Amino acid sequence: MTAAVKSTEEQNTYSPVTRQTYYHPLPFVLESGESLPELRITYHTSGTLNTRKDNVVWVAHALTANSDPLEWWPGLVGTDDLVNPEDHYIICANIIGSCYGTTGPRDFNPENGERYLTNFPDFTIRDIVRAHQLLRRHLGIEEIYLGLGGSMGGQQLLEWAIAEPDTFKNLCILATGARSTPWGIAFRAAQRMAMEADPSFFSASPNGGKKGAEAARAMAMISYRTREAFNSSQEDDNEARDNFRADSYQRYQGLKLSKRFDARTYYILSKAMDTHNVGRGRGSAEQALSSIKARTLVLGIEGDLLFANDEQAHLATHIPGAQLEIIPSRFGHDGFLIEAPAISKSLQEFLKQ
Amino acid sequence: MTAAVKSTEEQNTYSPVTRQTYYHPLPFVLESGESLPELRITYHTSGTLNTRKDNVVWVAHALTANSDPLEWWPGLVGTDDLVNPEDHYIICANIIGSCYGTTGPRDFNPENGERYLTNFPDFTIRDIVRAHQLLRRHLGIEEIYLGLGGSMGGQQLLEWAIAEPDTFKNLCILATGARSTPWGIAFRAAQRMAMEADPSFFSASPNGGKKGAEAARAMAMISYRTREAFNSSQEDDNEARDNFRADSYQRYQGLKLSKRFDARTYYILSKAMDTHNVGRGRGSAEQALSSIKARTLVLGIEGDLLFANDEQAHLATHIPGAQLEIIPSRFGHDGFLIEAPAISKSLQEFLKQ
Repeated sequence: MTAAVKSTEEQNTYSPVTRQTYYHPLPFVLESGESLPELRITYHTSGTLNTRKDNVVWVAHALTANSDPLEWWPGLVGTDDLVNPEDHYIICANIIGSCYGTTGPRDFNPENGERYLTNFPDFTIRDIVRAHQLLRRHLGIEEIYLGLGGSMGGQQLLEWAIAEPDTFKNLCILATGARSTPWGIAFRAAQRMAMEADPSFFSASPNGGKKGAEAARAMAMISYRTREAFNSSQEDDNEARDNFRADSYQRYQGLKLSKRFDARTYYILSKAMDTHNVGRGRGSAEQALSSIKARTLVLGIEGDLLFANDEQAHLATHIPGAQLEIIPSRFGHDGFLIEAPAISKSLQEFLKQ
Repeated sequence: MTAAVKSTEEQNTYSPVTRQTYYHPLPFVLESGESLPELRITYHTSGTLNTRKDNVVWVAHALTANSDPLEWWPGLVGTDDLVNPEDHYIICANIIGSCYGTTGPRDFNPENGERYLTNFPDFTIRDIVRAHQLLRRHLGIEEIYLGLGGSMGGQQLLEWAIAEPDTFKNLCILATGARSTPWGIAFRAAQRMAMEADPSFFSASPNGGKKGAEAARAMAMISYRTREAFNSSQEDDNEARDNFRADSYQRYQGLKLSKRFDARTYYILSKAMDTHNVGRGRGSAEQALSSIKARTLVLGIEGDLLFANDEQAHLATHIPGAQLEIIPSRFGHDGFLIEAPAISKSLQEFLKQ
C-alpha cells in the first residue's frame, strides 16, 4: 500500500483553495479482508505549508460533507476565521465511499467495468483513516498541528490519533464518541431499512434510491436536531388540520439531500459509522484512548441526541490530559456546525494554553 | 348520524370477553367534510354493566393496538388487575382506519366495490371519537366511570372529555399531550416518507407496503424507547464489525409489525395523530382543556421522547383539578404499556381519593 503513487494534479500551495486528486493504483485492502482494486482520494488544501511544516490543520469531514471545509464550516474555517489559510495549511480529504471525488459506489470497478453501486464493499472508519494516512505521507507531512472534526469526522480523528500517536500535536473532536452506540446504530438501521424499501436503490441506475434516501435523511434530521428546535421553528397555526410545517420541513430536507448526495453512498457510510469502535482489537475503548498523545479538546453539544454528552465525558476521562467542554446550543448534534463562534472561542483558548 | 343502527351480534355481558361489531349504515361525515359511506366499529367488552350503570371503564387504544386491552395491557387491565371484568364493564373500540375490525383501508368501499387502500379519506382524532360516541349511545351508556388510555388513546380521551364534558367521571390519560408537536409530526413524517418510498404501498395489493412499514416501525421504535434502553439491551461484543444487535433488533421489530399490521392503516393513523389539537376551533388548547369536568389523573413516563413530560405538565396545569405524576421508567414512551404495576398503583390511589 506504500508502493507507487502519483498525484493527478500538481499541488499548488499558494492558491487559497485547491481541489486535487491523489491516485493509488494498487489494491487497497480493507479491514474486512476485501479490497478496492485502486483508490482515488479527492482532497482540498488551502493556505501554504510553512517552512517549519508546523502549521498543518487536518479537517476530517462528517457523513455527507465534502473535502472543502471553507464551504461547510463557516465561522470556524475560513479566511476570517480561527482556522484560516493565512496562518494554516488546511487539508481535508473526502472519505472512501463518498460521492465527492474519492472512490465510491458511483465509480466504475476496474475489475469488471461496472459501477459499484450496491456492490461497493463494506469498510470501516479505520479504512477511511488508513487511506488518509497514505495521503499524509504523499504530501510529505510528518506532523499535524491540529486535527479538527465533528461527528463521523471526530470518529476518524480518534482512530487516527490512536493508530499514529505521534502525528497530531493537538486534537479538537466534537460531538462524537469512542464507539458507536446501539442507539446510534438503531437510528441508522431504520434509515437503511427505508433505503432498502425503495427498489430503485438496487437498480442499475446511478441515480437510484432517491426516495428511500429522502426518508432516511428525514429520520436522520430527528437525530441531528432537538425537540426544542423543531417545536420552536415549525409551529403551526391553531386551526391547521393538514400540511403541517414539520412535515413539509422533513420533505424539504430529504429532497435537499437526495439532490446532492448518492443513495448508495449514504447507505455505505451509515454502515461505516456503525463500525466505529476504537477498542476493537485493542482490549477496550478505554485502553485505546489512553494511548493518545495529542493534547485533546473534547467538545460536546448540549442536547445532542445522537452523540450524548456522556460520550464526550467518557472520551475526556480516558484521553490523557484531555479537556472537556459542552457548547450551549438549542440545536443538538448539528450544533457542531452551527455553533461555530462558540466552538472557535473554546478552541482558541485551548490552543493558546 | 344518529339514525338507524343495529348490532351485528347480540351483546353478551356475561362472557369475560366478547368481540362485537356495531354497524352504522349511513354516511359518516368526517371533520374534513369528506364522508365514509358506512361505518363498522369492532369493539370488545368484558365484565357486566351493573344495575347502577356506574362501572364502565372505557379504554382507548393507541396506534397499532386492537380493541382487546386484556391482551395488550396486562398488569393494568385483566382478570387479576386493577381494571378487571369482575368489578368493571370494560369497553374498548377499535378506531377508524385500523385493520382490527373497524372500517379501514383494507375494507371495500361500497360506492365502487374496491378496497380503499390509499384512497381512504384522511380523518382526525375527533372523527375517531365521534364514532365511539355513536357506539356509547348504542350501548345505552350515559356515564363512564373511567376513561383510560395512553399515547393516541390519551389524545382520544382528551377530545372526548372536551366534546362531552359530562360523560366521564374519571380520566386517566398517559404519555400524551394537548396537541401534536412539530417534533412528533417530524418523526411521523419521516415514517410516512419511508412508506412512500416503497412503490408496493401504492399498488392494488391488499398486502402492499410491507417493506416501507417495516422501516417506519423501526423509526417509530426510536421514539418509543430511550437511548438507555437501547444501549443497555443491545450492546455488542467489543470485536463486532457487522451484524450489530441494534440493527437486528430494528429489523425484527419492523417485521413483527408488518406481519400483523396493514401499511395503509399505519400511514393513515399516523396522519390522524398529527391532527391532534384539542384547541382547534376552540380558541386555544388551554381554553379547551379548562372545559374538562372529569377528575383527571395525568401520567407521564420518565424519558418519553415522543410525548415529553412537559406536555403532561401542561395538561395537568390546564385541566381543572388534575393530578400529575411521572412514572419512573427506563423505557420512555413504551413505559405506558410496560410500567403497568406502577401505573396501577397510581391509578388505584387516585380512584380511592
